[in-house]
Amino acid sequence: MVNEKMYGLGSARSAIRELFEFGKRRAAEIGADKVYDFSLGNPSVEPPKEVNEAIVSILKEFGSKDVHGYSSAQGFLSTRKAVADKLNRENNTNISPDYIYMTAGAAAGLCIAVRALNEDKDEFIILAPYFPEYKVFIEAQGAKVVEVPCDASLNIDVKAFAAAITKNTKGVIINSPNNPSGKVYDQKTIKAICDILESKSKEFGSPIFVISDEPYRELVYSNTILPSILSMYDNTIICYSYSKSLSIPGDRIGYLAVSDRCYGKDKVYAAINGAGRALGYVCAPTLFQLVIERCIDAKTNIFDYDKNRTLLYENLTNIGYDCLKPDGAFYLFVKSLEKDSIAFCERAKNSGILIVPSDSFGVKGYARIAYCVDYNTIERSLPAFKELFDSYKK
Amino acid sequence: MVNEKMYGLGSARSAIRELFEFGKRRAAEIGADKVYDFSLGNPSVEPPKEVNEAIVSILKEFGSKDVHGYSSAQGFLSTRKAVADKLNRENNTNISPDYIYMTAGAAAGLCIAVRALNEDKDEFIILAPYFPEYKVFIEAQGAKVVEVPCDASLNIDVKAFAAAITKNTKGVIINSPNNPSGKVYDQKTIKAICDILESKSKEFGSPIFVISDEPYRELVYSNTILPSILSMYDNTIICYSYSKSLSIPGDRIGYLAVSDRCYGKDKVYAAINGAGRALGYVCAPTLFQLVIERCIDAKTNIFDYDKNRTLLYENLTNIGYDCLKPDGAFYLFVKSLEKDSIAFCERAKNSGILIVPSDSFGVKGYARIAYCVDYNTIERSLPAFKELFDSYKK
Repeated sequence: MVNEKMYGLGSARSAIRELFEFGKRRAAEIGADKVYDFSLGNPSVEPPKEVNEAIVSILKEFGSKDVHGYSSAQGFLSTRKAVADKLNRENNTNISPDYIYMTAGAAAGLCIAVRALNEDKDEFIILAPYFPEYKVFIEAQGAKVVEVPCDASLNIDVKAFAAAITKNTKGVIINSPNNPSGKVYDQKTIKAICDILESKSKEFGSPIFVISDEPYRELVYSNTILPSILSMYDNTIICYSYSKSLSIPGDRIGYLAVSDRCYGKDKVYAAINGAGRALGYVCAPTLFQLVIERCIDAKTNIFDYDKNRTLLYENLTNIGYDCLKPDGAFYLFVKSLEKDSIAFCERAKNSGILIVPSDSFGVKGYARIAYCVDYNTIERSLPAFKELFDSYKK
Repeated sequence: MVNEKMYGLGSARSAIRELFEFGKRRAAEIGADKVYDFSLGNPSVEPPKEVNEAIVSILKEFGSKDVHGYSSAQGFLSTRKAVADKLNRENNTNISPDYIYMTAGAAAGLCIAVRALNEDKDEFIILAPYFPEYKVFIEAQGAKVVEVPCDASLNIDVKAFAAAITKNTKGVIINSPNNPSGKVYDQKTIKAICDILESKSKEFGSPIFVISDEPYRELVYSNTILPSILSMYDNTIICYSYSKSLSIPGDRIGYLAVSDRCYGKDKVYAAINGAGRALGYVCAPTLFQLVIERCIDAKTNIFDYDKNRTLLYENLTNIGYDCLKPDGAFYLFVKSLEKDSIAFCERAKNSGILIVPSDSFGVKGYARIAYCVDYNTIERSLPAFKELFDSYKK
């Protein structure tokens, strides 16, 4: 009667969402102060004040019909120009606004990009650990998901990556800073990936595209350098969202950018326009296109995330946990204290700690701690983490 | 290298968009005052002042993280409650907020609904004259489009409709008030359609759904009564957008509502959730969810549209044109003065009149005049319409 696959997607809650709901029930039972919810990747830092200031001044300056009217399908030229200028400044590229497509966030962008590129069950590679919805988005566009496992240090397994590429590979999604691991893939790794893609594109006589999913681009800590895939690999499509960098996930605004050196860039951009149309996505929210234009250099306060990161990493390490020190995003990967990380996260619940087993992200043996929470929540959770650790010594 | 179908959709401008661009070029050549652009269905009436007032007060009352944060996938409960209450009040139904799914406008809603229902190349009926993107949306979800022609008075051809239903028919899109004809299908017609659907659903042993696309629901003139499909047919899914009723097309906000009497409504709603997820549509723009909640009874000034309608209809009729008097929306269908309405619209361009041949909407022999323009534009265009009419007497 209905599409069974859609029914399945709609009725099966994601593991993350399930945990979040459990947390709410548990808080009602034992008190909110005894539940430490690290399940969701929802920004905990306020949007920069420029966002609301921009809204208020736009409402004053523009006629109401203009603010709330349609933009062109691909977005306002002025917004696309601001986006292109910033990309060019930061990546030393020369992208024209004519290759920027404003979207309702990164999920929309990913769906559009895959739909634009997929011919007939083409393969798209995702690299573990990965954001689980990648699979949903790729399959929903009629394409095939190919998973590549990571190496022991949660880095991209370059050899496994090379081996996974076939003549049907149309693209690979790279997500750095990474959700869920917090890892920033280094220059050497990205260079190796790009070299492989170039040689395989040549070997098969057709371009393999990188879809660089970069919602966490601005969330990088210490002296970590984020390699610019855009400047390193020609056939790159950037998929960006302002959800994390401006803490505005509800406003559904982001963009797709096609590299100025992308093979057949006109055709790729036209197909992106077509996919936007086919998926009902033309004209990203206009008020927020105008906001982005004015807030193009605004920054959320990443020091708060960095403080959380340091507090959590240092204390968990001191307790005895084996943690991957995050370079970016707002996630920390901690090694499970037993082989089965699902069982580990279940046991963590007894101490009030809600963390997500890495199995959801295509990797075994870890848990994801989303530290986009109040500093105070982390402080209060530390005895619970100690309790959990000690429970494994018995 | 890319998906050819998407490339085609992205590179082929729609006839309407093409005309709009021509108008801009022509205005530069002969002066904007000599071009009468009736091509686009873009609201010409300001949003009600409540919209901007709501934005400003929401920014003051809510914390910035709440305003710009995620809602649940299907939308805020409070917003869904406001939507359900209004629907129930107006249709004498009993829909729970748990069957409302907030979407980024009607295009998103249509894509989601078709994706949710389509099993394997199911058939979806569209009734001429129709909004051309219906075909794009249906095909993009892997379903099959079945067109049913209208009768000579542009009404639904009930017999042709009955004959078009097969065991593969999953749904029919009904759009009343209609874009492009401005027609409101009357009670008798809708009743006949519902009776056929009920008997065919029984005959084939599976429900046929009505997707009632109602963005123009509030734009109804004189004493016209808009029949409530929701209260007349159980298996109805409403697809709504606030783009026209509040003149906020850029804000991308609308909803899907599943009838409280819909067969398997839980399954249908779950599949809608799944399709929203698969198409990257979870969480409609949150600020505008909050705005809708506060503006649920706000109205755009439809008297301005009504004045335009009367001015245009009376004058064109006086000149000698054969017009379908519009009951709703902001379109007027005028009979072509020659057999080929594409040639007619081409000749209209010589008089500076930009109108869309009905061929784009699945009907021959008419042109669509979008009268969502300044009153003054219509006044100034009347001599040009006279000139065009007279040119056919030579």
